[in-house]
Amino acid sequence: MHITVQRDKLSNAVSHVSKAVSSRTTIPILTGIKIKTDDEGITLTASDSDISIEVQIPLEEAGDWGVTIHQPGSIVLPARIFSEIVRKLPSNEIHIQADDRLVTQIRSGQAEFTINGMDASEYPQLPHLEEDKVISVPCDLLKAMIRQTVFGVSTSEMRPILTGIMWSLEQGKLRFVATDSHRLASRTAMVECPEDLSFHNVVVPGKSCNELMKILDDDQNLADIVVADNQILVKSKHILFYSRLLEGTYPDTTRIIPQGSKTEITVSTKEFLQSIERASLLSREGKSNVVKLVTLSDGSVEITSNAPEIGKVTDILMPKALNGEELKISFNAKYMIDALRAIDSTEIKASFTGPMSPFVIRPTDHDWMLHLILPVRTY
Amino acid sequence: MHITVQRDKLSNAVSHVSKAVSSRTTIPILTGIKIKTDDEGITLTASDSDISIEVQIPLEEAGDWGVTIHQPGSIVLPARIFSEIVRKLPSNEIHIQADDRLVTQIRSGQAEFTINGMDASEYPQLPHLEEDKVISVPCDLLKAMIRQTVFGVSTSEMRPILTGIMWSLEQGKLRFVATDSHRLASRTAMVECPEDLSFHNVVVPGKSCNELMKILDDDQNLADIVVADNQILVKSKHILFYSRLLEGTYPDTTRIIPQGSKTEITVSTKEFLQSIERASLLSREGKSNVVKLVTLSDGSVEITSNAPEIGKVTDILMPKALNGEELKISFNAKYMIDALRAIDSTEIKASFTGPMSPFVIRPTDHDWMLHLILPVRTY
Repeated sequence: MHITVQRDKLSNAVSHVSKAVSSRTTIPILTGIKIKTDDEGITLTASDSDISIEVQIPLEEAGDWGVTIHQPGSIVLPARIFSEIVRKLPSNEIHIQADDRLVTQIRSGQAEFTINGMDASEYPQLPHLEEDKVISVPCDLLKAMIRQTVFGVSTSEMRPILTGIMWSLEQGKLRFVATDSHRLASRTAMVECPEDLSFHNVVVPGKSCNELMKILDDDQNLADIVVADNQILVKSKHILFYSRLLEGTYPDTTRIIPQGSKTEITVSTKEFLQSIERASLLSREGKSNVVKLVTLSDGSVEITSNAPEIGKVTDILMPKALNGEELKISFNAKYMIDALRAIDSTEIKASFTGPMSPFVIRPTDHDWMLHLILPVRTY
Repeated sequence: MHITVQRDKLSNAVSHVSKAVSSRTTIPILTGIKIKTDDEGITLTASDSDISIEVQIPLEEAGDWGVTIHQPGSIVLPARIFSEIVRKLPSNEIHIQADDRLVTQIRSGQAEFTINGMDASEYPQLPHLEEDKVISVPCDLLKAMIRQTVFGVSTSEMRPILTGIMWSLEQGKLRFVATDSHRLASRTAMVECPEDLSFHNVVVPGKSCNELMKILDDDQNLADIVVADNQILVKSKHILFYSRLLEGTYPDTTRIIPQGSKTEITVSTKEFLQSIERASLLSREGKSNVVKLVTLSDGSVEITSNAPEIGKVTDILMPKALNGEELKISFNAKYMIDALRAIDSTEIKASFTGPMSPFVIRPTDHDWMLHLILPVRTY
């Protein structure tokens, strides 16, 4: 293989695929990045066997030179050192030339590296997914949907299925749900897809979702999503992102979301968040991180917390509206802070059905998002 | 004690003094920040017994309100939680009121914290230094002098005296020297001071110098330096920074700096640095991080390194001037990178007296800085 490639494009591609390289792998070739030429340019591949990422660098794109192929071929180069070398090279053009013994020269300006490559024929094949049924979502929306739910996945391996986000599609509505059984985050959006396409129980590992969020651009270009039996593929411009799916059946979460409410508080998202954050300064000193919310007869809401030996805090919040029964309820401040930070809307409505029942936080300006939190019994 | 203080000033003061709070102290009261009123305003104090920092908030400054004292007094508040509370308070005015039982109310807007304070009379007294002999240095220069030498201090406790920067003053010339016995960094500057003032062997711990660098503003206001037997005090605006000095005798470093040279290379600081950084990508994979420099007959300089099993790198550097004998020399890339990064000048001169002797790097545009590096024997 002998190619000349534009430095910034190579550097970008290497930094993208590097997110899939695990330093702790037991498969030596997976510590490398595969470079392979084809008729359209070159493709870089990296994989940690859970996540695989491919990035293409086309020969040219909109008149902009990307890569020249002097001799087709492929090579696997050690990921960390290759990525550091690419970042430090002095000139715009990078020559990469691998000989039959896998010895690879990387030249740029007056700098010349000679490093030992690995045999690309030993690199595992990525799965081939049928791309006849594709759903399309703007990249920024897909990023937002992940950001607004992924904090809710379980970090415990007790119930592995809860460590992922459950993706489902029905009648053009894509839904993400995450729960750790103490709280739940849900986000839906209308997407472009074939009319008859639907799926359920597609559980993407939280770690994969986090990496996908990092790799997607923050723009409205469409990302194409292909769902297969045990794999998902997200394609965006020159990036292909593969993740394995979690095995098992995701619990039915629709039944635990209460209908109706006994007490409703409509309040500024920011003021509510800041008040809970202040209370949390003390509550998190204890193990449980519990804050208490009490409705007062003058229409205000009192947020309190205390930490033995350190002190206590009282905050008075003036909601826009307070309706229904009096309420005293306690909950984990972290769950509330996570939910409120995920909400982009300026105002939320919290709907309670009593001090022992799960309650729901929704933005007031749309129905696409819902956060459910289980209270803590302190009364 | 009962005061009302401006939030941003309190927040700044707390963040400054917090740098002296150690979380690992065995003296409980040193986990706190002392607040004390006096006729001019309030003073915040924190100390980890090596470093002590005091910040004053005046009643007002240039017509700008700082603090109002309703009832004089003093209190010690737990540093971490107090600092977090101050940052999260909603309003511009913060009321702090401590009662006789040390219970302290912190109120701002609708938020009210009640925390348990500690008795300020138990807080250790800071040393009183005679301020009759003061030297004055612009803050940005003092920061630069630290930044350009502190990386050279030893991190090993084998010779504790080498873990500090040696400050000396003679005929108005302030000199900082740091060495770990493999390399040495020296920086001098003319300062304002009484004519007859001189000192030597004032060794300030590297950690103190780093904290001082962080706390000083990057401007040309003068910092006043007072040196006592076992303490140093640096005063800048409303900040007083105390550090203990290291005990022992700093080695005489003047004799190891070679006079004259056999080979001289004048080269762009940036090009030299980038070349060494590239070579270091491979050399640091080995234990010794050694790169090799060879002068070539065409007036260029070859920088090489290799890491068994990974590969090798060759870089050709075109210096502005190359004079004297041929040279092959090896050295630790990290020492060279540290030295070149510390030099603000665009061009340096490296002076060698043979492959086994220490060599010297100096900027070409002034004589205030010198870096000395011991070579590694590989030939």
